[in-house]
Amino acid sequence: MAAPIDFYFDFTSPYGYLAATQIERLAATYGRNVKWHPILLGVVFKATGAVPLTSVPMKAEYTLRDLERTARFIGVPYRHPSTFPIATQATARAMLWIADTHGEAKAAEFAKAAYRALFADGVNIGDAAETAKIAAGLDVDPEALGAALASAEVKERLKAEVEQAMARGVFGSPFVIVDGEPFWGFDHFPQIEALLRNGKI
Amino acid sequence: MAAPIDFYFDFTSPYGYLAATQIERLAATYGRNVKWHPILLGVVFKATGAVPLTSVPMKAEYTLRDLERTARFIGVPYRHPSTFPIATQATARAMLWIADTHGEAKAAEFAKAAYRALFADGVNIGDAAETAKIAAGLDVDPEALGAALASAEVKERLKAEVEQAMARGVFGSPFVIVDGEPFWGFDHFPQIEALLRNGKI
Repeated sequence: MAAPIDFYFDFTSPYGYLAATQIERLAATYGRNVKWHPILLGVVFKATGAVPLTSVPMKAEYTLRDLERTARFIGVPYRHPSTFPIATQATARAMLWIADTHGEAKAAEFAKAAYRALFADGVNIGDAAETAKIAAGLDVDPEALGAALASAEVKERLKAEVEQAMARGVFGSPFVIVDGEPFWGFDHFPQIEALLRNGKI
Repeated sequence: MAAPIDFYFDFTSPYGYLAATQIERLAATYGRNVKWHPILLGVVFKATGAVPLTSVPMKAEYTLRDLERTARFIGVPYRHPSTFPIATQATARAMLWIADTHGEAKAAEFAKAAYRALFADGVNIGDAAETAKIAAGLDVDPEALGAALASAEVKERLKAEVEQAMARGVFGSPFVIVDGEPFWGFDHFPQIEALLRNGKI
């Protein structure tokens, strides 16, 4: 099988959620796996000086409208969270620990469940108890997870992941790298598909 | 014929150029005309606090790569201008004056020729002599154009156009409004097409 597709996302990124509902089907169509990389936009934005779309005048209103419209366009549920943006360190660390202890497939399941909870079901996944519930629903021991989240090792693991992402040029969410080619934004999925299909754009 | 599609763009916007190569064919497929609206991103960005993509760390390098890739993807030429961004007041005023004196169709021809000159042929259209040459190539008298560009009336015309655009929520380039529905970015053309085809998204 060809190299996996690298999928970078922040758990509080709405376009990251939309992309997460589509990336595995897209990859599978062309015989690829997806490597899920949680990042922290807060850290990235400090380096670039960027701000969330939803905090820029005029863009904010448009972005909320575009999110609902784009979700309809691809046929997935979307409800803008009442608390937004949220801190996503704990969710990102949980995912990395699940990947290390339960495997990548379980971590991807967790990521999709957490995204759906936040952007479809109105659950504030920034709340540690909610993250534990999602993990428990996937047969991940919430007590072991809780202990891991308090460990310096897991914190360092996320820090290193974010640094590696930035070293590869990742500056937003979603961000996809296919065979060295970078794509920013869910809107670029048609170009990703063209690259996967033809081997070039 | 149904209402025209409103197409907002700044002459120094590379994604505006890419959109300008596609908008008329897209509109015509669904029996629509295009109303071309030159705007000034400098004025708009003052209101939103936004900065050009090509001046943000990390995004700048990506954006140059994405522009060349997206141009290949849609099969149009693209050469990033050596002087960028450029001031576009004169070109925008010229287009509005041509629309008022020679009609909308001639103005659209001028807009496409100016975009092609800047982003395909390496011509600095910020230079008034170059704008005059483009106009002359379309049988527009360059002397009458030069006199118009110096008039307060034409300056006011552009100012009003930009103010009207912002009042409609336009904050970037390209920006398209179809039957009241706003779309920001060339990436949104598939959604525009869906709306034109189905009457809804």
